[in-house]
Amino acid sequence: MKKTLIIGTAIALFTASAVAQKMSLDKADEAIAYRKASFSLLAANFGDLAARVQGKKPFDAAIVASRVNNVSALAQLPWEAFAVAGSDQGDTNSKAAVWKNAAQFDAARDEFLTAVATLQAAGGDQKALAKAVGAVGKSCKACHSDFKS
Amino acid sequence: MKKTLIIGTAIALFTASAVAQKMSLDKADEAIAYRKASFSLLAANFGDLAARVQGKKPFDAAIVASRVNNVSALAQLPWEAFAVAGSDQGDTNSKAAVWKNAAQFDAARDEFLTAVATLQAAGGDQKALAKAVGAVGKSCKACHSDFKS
Repeated sequence: MKKTLIIGTAIALFTASAVAQKMSLDKADEAIAYRKASFSLLAANFGDLAARVQGKKPFDAAIVASRVNNVSALAQLPWEAFAVAGSDQGDTNSKAAVWKNAAQFDAARDEFLTAVATLQAAGGDQKALAKAVGAVGKSCKACHSDFKS
Repeated sequence: MKKTLIIGTAIALFTASAVAQKMSLDKADEAIAYRKASFSLLAANFGDLAARVQGKKPFDAAIVASRVNNVSALAQLPWEAFAVAGSDQGDTNSKAAVWKNAAQFDAARDEFLTAVATLQAAGGDQKALAKAVGAVGKSCKACHSDFKS
């Protein structure tokens, strides 16, 4: 059992360094890439969700539930990457206001996360989903206008 | 109430198209970007998790739990994007074998997802986590060697 554990750990050690070398949260440029990837996946899932809730794509309950789950998970990701030293510089779409007006940025993030929690709580109720999607979209837009260049 | 719903939907309509224009699952090049973003975020989270489980970074239970949750959520994302027509061509790191040997690819994906489910089930048990991280890493590597160029 102990041997298995050591072998397992050795494999993980090798593999983790092999697969994770392109992006981490240890360097500024990688943190910026992490933020962009998170927001892009979030936008793709939210865009598809909104289209289905709005009748622009078929309302498939399983797909909608999957999109809501993805949005909920992805919504948690980008924030830690804003804390990486030096990530206010370089190839970023973030305005300096993210760091200069940190309390305002945190409040905008929290408003978004609250809207996402309400979206998750809507379950399969189409009217509640439509309202929650509207609120999430509004919080995206509000934060982007102040903090995204 | 009805008016609020309509306004909410109109805002979402505007915002979703504004934020989601860069990446979707409707076009081949965007599906490729979606896959890359998913795998990159997955690797970043798994890399940090493995480092903490292996003692290369501090074992912080809250961070470890967050990484496991992120890995579990991100592990679900890339697969649908392989089904987008034309996404076997272009700026992709996927070998043609993904589509030629689809049954084998699906089996490799399922082995990975099973390993990730075991990782999630490990909870805060450090020995179980180390073993599960090893198994996930092994499944990453196995799939990459056959299907990633």
